[in-house]
Amino acid sequence: MPDTTLFQELTREALNARARAGAIVVLPTGATEQHGPHLPVGTDTYAVEHIVRRAAATIAGQVPVIVAPTVPFGCSPHHLPFGGTLSFSTSTYYALLTDLMESLITDGFTRAMIVNGHGGNHEIIQLVVRDLALKHPVNLAAASYWQMAGAALQEISQAPGGRTPGHAGHFETAVIMALQPDLVVEPRPARTDDPSVTDPAELTSRLRIERHGSWQHFDGYTDSPATASAELGHQYVDSAVAAVADAIVQFDRQTSVTV
Amino acid sequence: MPDTTLFQELTREALNARARAGAIVVLPTGATEQHGPHLPVGTDTYAVEHIVRRAAATIAGQVPVIVAPTVPFGCSPHHLPFGGTLSFSTSTYYALLTDLMESLITDGFTRAMIVNGHGGNHEIIQLVVRDLALKHPVNLAAASYWQMAGAALQEISQAPGGRTPGHAGHFETAVIMALQPDLVVEPRPARTDDPSVTDPAELTSRLRIERHGSWQHFDGYTDSPATASAELGHQYVDSAVAAVADAIVQFDRQTSVTV
Amino acid sequence: MPDTTLFQELTREALNARARAGAIVVLPTGATEQHGPHLPVGTDTYAVEHIVRRAAATIAGQVPVIVAPTVPFGCSPHHLPFGGTLSFSTSTYYALLTDLMESLITDGFTRAMIVNGHGGNHEIIQLVVRDLALKHPVNLAAASYWQMAGAALQEISQAPGGRTPGHAGHFETAVIMALQPDLVVEPRPARTDDPSVTDPAELTSRLRIERHGSWQHFDGYTDSPATASAELGHQYVDSAVAAVADAIVQFDRQTSVTV
Amino acid sequence: MPDTTLFQELTREALNARARAGAIVVLPTGATEQHGPHLPVGTDTYAVEHIVRRAAATIAGQVPVIVAPTVPFGCSPHHLPFGGTLSFSTSTYYALLTDLMESLITDGFTRAMIVNGHGGNHEIIQLVVRDLALKHPVNLAAASYWQMAGAALQEISQAPGGRTPGHAGHFETAVIMALQPDLVVEPRPARTDDPSVTDPAELTSRLRIERHGSWQHFDGYTDSPATASAELGHQYVDSAVAAVADAIVQFDRQTSVTV
Amino acid sequence: MPDTTLFQELTREALNARARAGAIVVLPTGATEQHGPHLPVGTDTYAVEHIVRRAAATIAGQVPVIVAPTVPFGCSPHHLPFGGTLSFSTSTYYALLTDLMESLITDGFTRAMIVNGHGGNHEIIQLVVRDLALKHPVNLAAASYWQMAGAALQEISQAPGGRTPGHAGHFETAVIMALQPDLVVEPRPARTDDPSVTDPAELTSRLRIERHGSWQHFDGYTDSPATASAELGHQYVDSAVAAVADAIVQFDRQTSVTV
Amino acid sequence: MPDTTLFQELTREALNARARAGAIVVLPTGATEQHGPHLPVGTDTYAVEHIVRRAAATIAGQVPVIVAPTVPFGCSPHHLPFGGTLSFSTSTYYALLTDLMESLITDGFTRAMIVNGHGGNHEIIQLVVRDLALKHPVNLAAASYWQMAGAALQEISQAPGGRTPGHAGHFETAVIMALQPDLVVEPRPARTDDPSVTDPAELTSRLRIERHGSWQHFDGYTDSPATASAELGHQYVDSAVAAVADAIVQFDRQTSVTV
Repeated sequence: MPDTTLFQELTREALNARARAGAIVVLPTGATEQHGPHLPVGTDTYAVEHIVRRAAATIAGQVPVIVAPTVPFGCSPHHLPFGGTLSFSTSTYYALLTDLMESLITDGFTRAMIVNGHGGNHEIIQLVVRDLALKHPVNLAAASYWQMAGAALQEISQAPGGRTPGHAGHFETAVIMALQPDLVVEPRPARTDDPSVTDPAELTSRLRIERHGSWQHFDGYTDSPATASAELGHQYVDSAVAAVADAIVQFDRQTSVTV
Repeated sequence: MPDTTLFQELTREALNARARAGAIVVLPTGATEQHGPHLPVGTDTYAVEHIVRRAAATIAGQVPVIVAPTVPFGCSPHHLPFGGTLSFSTSTYYALLTDLMESLITDGFTRAMIVNGHGGNHEIIQLVVRDLALKHPVNLAAASYWQMAGAALQEISQAPGGRTPGHAGHFETAVIMALQPDLVVEPRPARTDDPSVTDPAELTSRLRIERHGSWQHFDGYTDSPATASAELGHQYVDSAVAAVADAIVQFDRQTSVTV
Repeated sequence: MPDTTLFQELTREALNARARAGAIVVLPTGATEQHGPHLPVGTDTYAVEHIVRRAAATIAGQVPVIVAPTVPFGCSPHHLPFGGTLSFSTSTYYALLTDLMESLITDGFTRAMIVNGHGGNHEIIQLVVRDLALKHPVNLAAASYWQMAGAALQEISQAPGGRTPGHAGHFETAVIMALQPDLVVEPRPARTDDPSVTDPAELTSRLRIERHGSWQHFDGYTDSPATASAELGHQYVDSAVAAVADAIVQFDRQTSVTV
Repeated sequence: MPDTTLFQELTREALNARARAGAIVVLPTGATEQHGPHLPVGTDTYAVEHIVRRAAATIAGQVPVIVAPTVPFGCSPHHLPFGGTLSFSTSTYYALLTDLMESLITDGFTRAMIVNGHGGNHEIIQLVVRDLALKHPVNLAAASYWQMAGAALQEISQAPGGRTPGHAGHFETAVIMALQPDLVVEPRPARTDDPSVTDPAELTSRLRIERHGSWQHFDGYTDSPATASAELGHQYVDSAVAAVADAIVQFDRQTSVTV
Repeated sequence: MPDTTLFQELTREALNARARAGAIVVLPTGATEQHGPHLPVGTDTYAVEHIVRRAAATIAGQVPVIVAPTVPFGCSPHHLPFGGTLSFSTSTYYALLTDLMESLITDGFTRAMIVNGHGGNHEIIQLVVRDLALKHPVNLAAASYWQMAGAALQEISQAPGGRTPGHAGHFETAVIMALQPDLVVEPRPARTDDPSVTDPAELTSRLRIERHGSWQHFDGYTDSPATASAELGHQYVDSAVAAVADAIVQFDRQTSVTV
Repeated sequence: MPDTTLFQELTREALNARARAGAIVVLPTGATEQHGPHLPVGTDTYAVEHIVRRAAATIAGQVPVIVAPTVPFGCSPHHLPFGGTLSFSTSTYYALLTDLMESLITDGFTRAMIVNGHGGNHEIIQLVVRDLALKHPVNLAAASYWQMAGAALQEISQAPGGRTPGHAGHFETAVIMALQPDLVVEPRPARTDDPSVTDPAELTSRLRIERHGSWQHFDGYTDSPATASAELGHQYVDSAVAAVADAIVQFDRQTSVTV
């Protein structure tokens, strides 16, 4: 039996043993959607899969953790007009995540965590864990990696003056330059003006305004990738890995003893 | 024709005229749910209806605003085990709000805003305006009043050391002592320990953990109402009214010219 | 604890006590929809809320009754083309009422009653109570107030020659002249011809014919408000209050002993 | 090409020609459900299919009418506890009828009518035609045969003192003794007491009370079949045929000219 | 009590007795859809109802079998553009069959079988029995008659060189010439070219290709009815009856002892 | 821009260009489910992803083909009782695939193909492409790889006497021994008896029988993995790659000219 943290590599017997031992299953949720003219549409999936798997590997010695296969598509209706996007509706995505989490519960797991890599999924992952933890005697968690790593990411971005996370701008360009350098199309577009878009990082803030056509207004990327670099990308990714690892540990501690 | 900001008081002709003039319709969303042994189950509805109507009246001279009837029930599955609670499922509440907002769009309104008074509705209102502003050529907004007024509320609560907003604790008890004093049952319960519950104000923060049975663990109210007073309640309400009024003005400004 | 029949004014403890005592919860169902050029769009909600609350207050001494918050929106697709209308689809409204009634059942209530104030809701309220009383060990009822008070309303209308109930015509104009006189826009439209519309009072009769565009054909009101008066409106309302009070008493008697 | 009023016997070309000529399609809706210990579970389907086909044949010379295949199952959740029942849920039945009526509209028909033979379908058929005639430029109708023939049926039943329609009692037993005499199991059960059940004929009346377990209370049939006879059954059926034929003619007249 | 295999002819008591005795209920599923310019739209329903009832009668002495009323409509979206078609959507048809099969399970039956007569239903009937046999402790089966009789049908068709089954071509024309000769419109259309359509018999084969507009391309019938005859039709029907009878016997044997 | 056939590696511009050029998008559909005590739960996903990507690479020079991210979860309710399984319900999976395919259509692609690697998905992929090719002006295809390669696989298996495909037996064990040898847990279970289970390869055959509990009866694997070897696995995989490549070419040819 391989010594692995990946769900798909294990047999049912190995998974049943880990379920009995109280393992935490982490489900990474990505997206396949336009990321400007320069980044691959798999950007969010590449990022979240890499971050979650490394985070789990980091703490596998201290916390019993398994990483499920990444959901490679998300809720991206705002990116459909650009092409190159595969999106679920809100209700389909809610049903999809509910089925996966209830499967884990049927499998005997009592602790699971959704770690999200795409802004359009953010509210839905929360509703799913809220509703299921009421219905079933389990403890669940949900979070988006850029929020867990928020403070660290902003600190890194201060010097180059980049926005975090934005969409297909400084931050994500740096991450893909670090993780999948061959997939970044050069020359990257330059942007000098501020498109005044609501930053996805602020979508859950005080006042959420949704203007029809706003994504088309700034051509699908929120800020300039000019200041991005692979080096910064590695710093961002390392910070995100650390933050996700911390969050899993925190979830483990808060749910190890029954409430 | 009455000079009113209330949707229900107007005729269809008056409403059609206001739609043509670009009026903003604000939909307050409340709840009917347990609020501990001392507060009425209508607490959230009382608060949000009062705050939104006063906010709209304050700015009616400068912004064309109409207030729709309050949705008096919300998404409160976490309060059902206590009794005294009327709740929609997530999917019903999403459908309900979608139908209401699409009705407004059919009525000719191009700007609408959901102002929310209950934590359990918070993510769903955002999904509704996100999805509908993509589908229809309109500008929509969504926000919870305690987030818009967050900084002001925390400043007021510093002296008495109360938590804002929490649930049925210091903050909401003060608000109802101000708005519906006859409905507060004395003696209010005292709580000296910290139930270590995730504060609803932090539900959208870095890591959302949902533990089965957590609400029962602290008997349905998050912090002690001991420090509440009607005077503080009036300060909270006034701050919320000001913040909501500001938000409507901000929404008006950002959507007065087409993107 | 206030001595009230209003659900929203009570605490969970008070509601739990009343549930244990076998109280009947009455849910008033209204609408927000066009009512011609002269009546407010809240007409149905104003009427049914007033009638049910007064009826409950009348008999509160003899029957344990609580009035839930009024559902201020209903199923009004036939009024959407006029503007000023907020409507649920049939499936959303069925889900909405099902969730509310099942919440009451979860809350421990075994008797509940929907009292309806809008024609478009009439069939759906019946399906909801039919389906839920089969699924759960409870006794439920549903009725529209103008049907319960049918004979009395027709007797009152004989002298002025008005139709009851119709839509936004003689009857409803009189009711709003009595309950919300400031919201009636004068001069009221006059109608001398008979638009030959199927009277909503006859919608459940032998043969229901639905012609596309029929509501637009007679401009959204079924008969002339010319003969309406506040005095007649008070008579109509008083009769409706008495009929609803009688119905609650009848429901109490028929369900006090187990079948 | 056969000279027939039956939809299923015609080719697509013949049906398209009739659609272009403005034919009315009548959809009979039955049920398969327990009808006491003495009547076949197909009772409602036998009755409505016979009545509608004969009614259509009677007037085929003056009104262009086609009869669709009978829907042999209906919404019968109240009969499931007895066995021998095939039932749709409310939402499935609404979807089923909507799909069939929208198919007819796609086929080019602009007039259609649901003639119903089972109480549990009564409200749903009305909602379907209401919703579809708003959505599509067509004229639709819905009715239950025992309501259209109500006065005539009551007159016939006065002498023997039987209830009409009830369920599996005097009336339906007589109808099946007339239409399918070999399927009535003798001796029929006798009932001397009044089970005090809400008569299905009154289900749309002033106050609808649904008591859990009420159908089991009187063993699934509402009144005694003792006074039934094949002769009375033929009278009932003939009256129903005449009433349905009249209703189709009335629908034809009211919808021959555009509203 | 009649000695019958038809569900609708039996009383609830008779059906409950047969359920207790382990009877198999067979549900025939048909369609109402265009079948070219020469065959009635009820073709599939005529065929499957005849075949299943005769098959059941054949083996009623050795296997306890009951035939439910035929579902006269199916999933036929590919035939809607031609007119004369009544179709359910995929989701409605899945819900419809699920409700019927779960009703049988509620009625106490533990063995049921869907025998299908329309290609568009083929995958859905399989999903329904798959899902329900997992959920409930019952044994279910599903099959389309032309697959069960596949080898025999092909053998018969070799001499005239006709395709089986196709749609509204050689095979179905022969079947209706045998079963409902008066409903075949002459002269039947002749087709000399091969429309190169995917034969419905091959729809579940290695590669299913769905080209938009393909059914219109060959005018709704897949092959020439020229070689059809009533005599061949009787041979086809007899073979299908025998194959369905065999399948019911096989299902009885495989499910008589608990797995 | 990388020279790749993988959807996720491309930018929106590159994908839009390929859509305009008529590229075929292939969506591999896998599963995460128990595969006996010896194979990883990711077996189906490993196999189908490998086969489709290699097939596409093989023919990329002659057919414009892109491979979308593999759907790593499928419809596996029959494997839930064993643990280690993540499954969608039938309706969720239908919605999920519909959303993905409609996204591709919105992205401008007019040709897409689902290549499936899990038996439980087989009927649903067909319904999705059937329904969408009727609704949209596109050409779609769906197939399971083991059916496309059926004859070749059986020929290979003749010598060792293994079943193809079965579930977690001879065939799949060989495939994973070839593709992911480190994930096969030794010693593999031996099976000498024939569990007489319906082979998934025959699920679409003449008579589909679903017995409750049948999967548990033979412990979740259909036949003995004893005869499996990595060498045979490579032969199976190579054959499947060739068959899928052929199918894509065939789909390209049949849809290159408009019907």
